Amino acid sequence: MSIVSKENRIGIIGSGSWATALAKILTDNGQHIHWWIRNEDTIRHMQQRHHNKHYLTSVYFDTSLLSLSSDVRAVVAACDELVLAVPSAFLTEVLEQLPASALEGKKVISAIKGLVPGNNQLINEYLEERFRLPAAHYFTITGPCHAEEVANEKLSYLTFSGVHQEAAQAIADKFTGSYLQTIVNTDMIGVQLAAVMKNIYALGAGIAHGLEYGDNFLSVYITNCFREMQAFLEQYEARKAELQGSEPTVHNYSASAYLGDLLVTCYSLHSRNRTFGNMIGKGYSVKAAQLELNMIAEGYYASKCMYEMNKEIGAVMPVAQAVYAVLWQQVHPSEAFLSLEKGFI
Amino acid sequence: MSIVSKENRIGIIGSGSWATALAKILTDNGQHIHWWIRNEDTIRHMQQRHHNKHYLTSVYFDTSLLSLSSDVRAVVAACDELVLAVPSAFLTEVLEQLPASALEGKKVISAIKGLVPGNNQLINEYLEERFRLPAAHYFTITGPCHAEEVANEKLSYLTFSGVHQEAAQAIADKFTGSYLQTIVNTDMIGVQLAAVMKNIYALGAGIAHGLEYGDNFLSVYITNCFREMQAFLEQYEARKAELQGSEPTVHNYSASAYLGDLLVTCYSLHSRNRTFGNMIGKGYSVKAAQLELNMIAEGYYASKCMYEMNKEIGAVMPVAQAVYAVLWQQVHPSEAFLSLEKGFI
Repeated sequence: MSIVSKENRIGIIGSGSWATALAKILTDNGQHIHWWIRNEDTIRHMQQRHHNKHYLTSVYFDTSLLSLSSDVRAVVAACDELVLAVPSAFLTEVLEQLPASALEGKKVISAIKGLVPGNNQLINEYLEERFRLPAAHYFTITGPCHAEEVANEKLSYLTFSGVHQEAAQAIADKFTGSYLQTIVNTDMIGVQLAAVMKNIYALGAGIAHGLEYGDNFLSVYITNCFREMQAFLEQYEARKAELQGSEPTVHNYSASAYLGDLLVTCYSLHSRNRTFGNMIGKGYSVKAAQLELNMIAEGYYASKCMYEMNKEIGAVMPVAQAVYAVLWQQVHPSEAFLSLEKGFI
Repeated sequence: MSIVSKENRIGIIGSGSWATALAKILTDNGQHIHWWIRNEDTIRHMQQRHHNKHYLTSVYFDTSLLSLSSDVRAVVAACDELVLAVPSAFLTEVLEQLPASALEGKKVISAIKGLVPGNNQLINEYLEERFRLPAAHYFTITGPCHAEEVANEKLSYLTFSGVHQEAAQAIADKFTGSYLQTIVNTDMIGVQLAAVMKNIYALGAGIAHGLEYGDNFLSVYITNCFREMQAFLEQYEARKAELQGSEPTVHNYSASAYLGDLLVTCYSLHSRNRTFGNMIGKGYSVKAAQLELNMIAEGYYASKCMYEMNKEIGAVMPVAQAVYAVLWQQVHPSEAFLSLEKGFI
């Protein structure tokens, strides 16, 4: 039995490449969507030319399935289910426009890869604090998934997580299609943290490449990142269980939302994190790399977030620590990586 | 305390790229080696020009550290420790020249990636049967390690396994050097089986590429291969424990000899298994791919070996089963992979 009826109105907040890919997936399934796009000009172009002029420009939409608006309040009000797909850096700026009651009775599906900037909150923690969104109404969408491959209709897998399996399944069913497989689990906290950590490790993979380590090393490096990620998540669950006086939850980390997402991010040559890391490894300062690339990779902020967070958790995370030391403590990349070499298994 | 004294004489059997890389590692550590090279002309060239004319030709040797011979009996007789580094297909042909007592009191270090052809024996099982080599005198060297990166002195990791940790450590110490880290464990059975299985999965990665699946899928595919490999090894250990009336041994599969080797093999574009699989995925028959490439990839035989072996173990191995069905049962690649898609997590 599906908890969410087929008639629920669904909205997408954001118009970057990931938002555009999700809009394609839903409309390819014949789903009507409300779509918040900040820029009026982008909306006009979409209405006239049927595609997003800035991202995944090869993707054409059946505009009869689109209700486009630059008014975030109106889009939120019109929907029962909202997919959040803005960069984490813009999340609060967009949502602060809404009254505190705006999400009452609604389900929120976060496709955001990252934590709330400034305070290291998970997205669900922020939504609970700001909008009193109950945990049961919060869901996540995680990869491994390059938006570009969705545009090309290459078979991809998305994991939908929520505290209730059946409710997450009902959301997932709207996305499942000919080129899109969905996986459902109840670990919405672990998948969010894994999505943050993988950016640190991908940035580190870039540093390793910049330092001229080869493929043999990279495979060992990623293997050790995977073990480190798992160790953190297990310790995080243990800590949570301790606070709640319950048994720690055991998750399957050899699943695509964990290991798969780590692999696609670390091995992708197009990842921002890897490109940024590569420049750091080649000797650029953080500032110079930022100026050159005109952006700072998510892994840069993520490494600080995880460093802060791990003060409480206390997991042994030599790789994340080394990346943090390079980015935030002016430790030389080659020195930081030299300290890692001996510990890998 | 080292069990193996520094004075033990070490020999290498084989002169392919992996044997040449291992000879470089040992001699770069100042170790004198006895080296069996089948071809007299290769030996003469090595003596005159200081390199192997067929493999890793950029690697130059200090020939004062080399005792070269095309007489396998003489090399075996001269050594206390023997590194086996011939392709598994030639192993029995080379060793059948030796008397049954030839390995008495000697340690054998297998760098062979594969099983004994024809009967699916692990190398140690064959050596025990044929030469009464005790398990305590048998060691393995496993990757992840492309020989080409050793040639370029890119930092690489090798895992040395033996039933006694300390004895394996003593062997490993001879290989540890500026560009070579060593890891030691006591799981010499699991690492051998993992090295066989990864070739099946790499061949499958090639098939997926030939069928035009993308990077998103590949990361999910490899994640599921890893879980499948682990499931087989756990069930293998459980079965062994049952037969011996002991507790099953638990190994760390998130280590470079397992996950790392799987990654480097599946992601390498230069892997024979991947190239072979790619042709199969593009519609070539096994015979046509073999003729075109003038070789059959190890994963081809490995898939049959594991299929036979798993009849007894009974692990759930959908990916290995699908690759087997394509290679040995004329199932169309796209059909076999379609059957996998739904089961991935």
